[in-house]
Amino acid sequence: MMNSFDLNSYFSATRKQIDEALGSIFANTSSKIVKAMKYSLMAGGKRIRPVLCVASAETVGGQSQDVIRAACALEMIHTYSLIHDDLPAMDNDEIRRGQPTCHVAFDEATAILTGDALLTLAFEVLSSIEFIQKNHVLNWMNVIHTLSRAAGYKGMIEGQMQDMAGEGNLLCLEDLENMHALKTGALIEASVAVGAILGKGSLDQIQQLKTYAKNIGLAFQVTDDLLDVEGDPNVMGKDVGSDQARSKSTYPALLGIEQSKQFAKKLVNNALKALNYFDNKAHPLRAIAYYIVDRKK
Amino acid sequence: MMNSFDLNSYFSATRKQIDEALGSIFANTSSKIVKAMKYSLMAGGKRIRPVLCVASAETVGGQSQDVIRAACALEMIHTYSLIHDDLPAMDNDEIRRGQPTCHVAFDEATAILTGDALLTLAFEVLSSIEFIQKNHVLNWMNVIHTLSRAAGYKGMIEGQMQDMAGEGNLLCLEDLENMHALKTGALIEASVAVGAILGKGSLDQIQQLKTYAKNIGLAFQVTDDLLDVEGDPNVMGKDVGSDQARSKSTYPALLGIEQSKQFAKKLVNNALKALNYFDNKAHPLRAIAYYIVDRKK
Repeated sequence: MMNSFDLNSYFSATRKQIDEALGSIFANTSSKIVKAMKYSLMAGGKRIRPVLCVASAETVGGQSQDVIRAACALEMIHTYSLIHDDLPAMDNDEIRRGQPTCHVAFDEATAILTGDALLTLAFEVLSSIEFIQKNHVLNWMNVIHTLSRAAGYKGMIEGQMQDMAGEGNLLCLEDLENMHALKTGALIEASVAVGAILGKGSLDQIQQLKTYAKNIGLAFQVTDDLLDVEGDPNVMGKDVGSDQARSKSTYPALLGIEQSKQFAKKLVNNALKALNYFDNKAHPLRAIAYYIVDRKK
Repeated sequence: MMNSFDLNSYFSATRKQIDEALGSIFANTSSKIVKAMKYSLMAGGKRIRPVLCVASAETVGGQSQDVIRAACALEMIHTYSLIHDDLPAMDNDEIRRGQPTCHVAFDEATAILTGDALLTLAFEVLSSIEFIQKNHVLNWMNVIHTLSRAAGYKGMIEGQMQDMAGEGNLLCLEDLENMHALKTGALIEASVAVGAILGKGSLDQIQQLKTYAKNIGLAFQVTDDLLDVEGDPNVMGKDVGSDQARSKSTYPALLGIEQSKQFAKKLVNNALKALNYFDNKAHPLRAIAYYIVDRKK
């Protein structure tokens, strides 16, 4: 069944829509901050969150143009979090998406402000009244609320705090899962929820899609850990082995490589089960679930 | 006329409302990030932006409870900007509001994330659907848009970029004014605009209030520069002389102390003129305009 769906074409087409929308959002200015924002935003990320948002909207019968601005906001929030996580005071990473990180290409102060600016711009984009139909304004408000909660101190930021606190200590499996559910899971779940809200899904549909997202979110992380052990740095565009160098708790470290792979597969199966609720329109989401554990970067 | 209005009592009463609302917003958690957020947020700032927001709403006939959550969001955005500006990579300040800055009291990574979390929480608070009456949702969306623009790369963040770029170079008066209009003016203008929007002011009223805000915003900055030269560090709760130490362009450096004081007075007069449009309900805003140039910290 899945062979009939061409995820690569779907990804390219959706990514193109997103990149065009992202490019059109900036005011026409040559300021340094805009250069830095574009540098990090347009560095060719996988765009998994925006693609999930679009695919989720389509699954409940919506159209990509209904959600494209929300998809852009998701990528801005994701990129801001990468820029700040890469800073010397945090993970001190020098390569990201195959190019020097923002604070290396510019400077530390600029990188801090670039992250701030992308986070702020996400909310500017989500609240652009000229793009919001009057009778949809409550849905957009719900989107802003969903995203700000997921990205905030009860979600992504708390996850990063726990990740930093855990460096050098071997976490138990439960704490590791909780950390990832916050650090990356919350925004992935929000990506899918936001797509479903703007695609006018029912509460039941949104609930199933959140279950899907929770599972692929964790599968994504387990795969990330595996790639840090087994991945090819040339394919990935970033260094490998950094988790071990920092004594980070990872699934391979806690479960071993084989059991980690089994765990990732189990999570993908859970995700697919949640999609049984939907018809063929969920094919992109199904293909993304497979892709997440099969990817090489 | 102004003697009849007791700004101190007004400030205390409004500040109390704001501080109670701020305290009630946090989830009941003992996490480190919440401790750091509260540490910086509850450090006893002047609360000028939230008070301006409330006073602006009252000027157009609204009530403080209509805007109190927006006032909280303003203080969160202001506090986030201070935390990030104080970082070693930016101004490297160790004392703020009379206590160690966030990165000194905690650590640099926590301070970066605390700023991020306060910025994000501002938008969570502004989009809390349970607090928004359905027929006011468009006004709240307008508030989110106004604030995100003011705080973003076309406003406050660009101002901070220009401020950093200007260190060590003596700016001309026009560039200095433009930098301040962005760095502090944009958020002060937004504070007043947001109050007027939620107080259901007319477009004309909002326009007059923005003129008021532009003028007091710049007057505030000129006075800040003067306090850095002439202020008493014990009263101010922070070091003085830091502008000169960093070769920052300031009004006293460009105009001299006396002319800077005259300029601040002229700006306050412009602000008061814009308030001629309003009745006695604008008395708090009038008193704030006087206060801004007379303050000792």
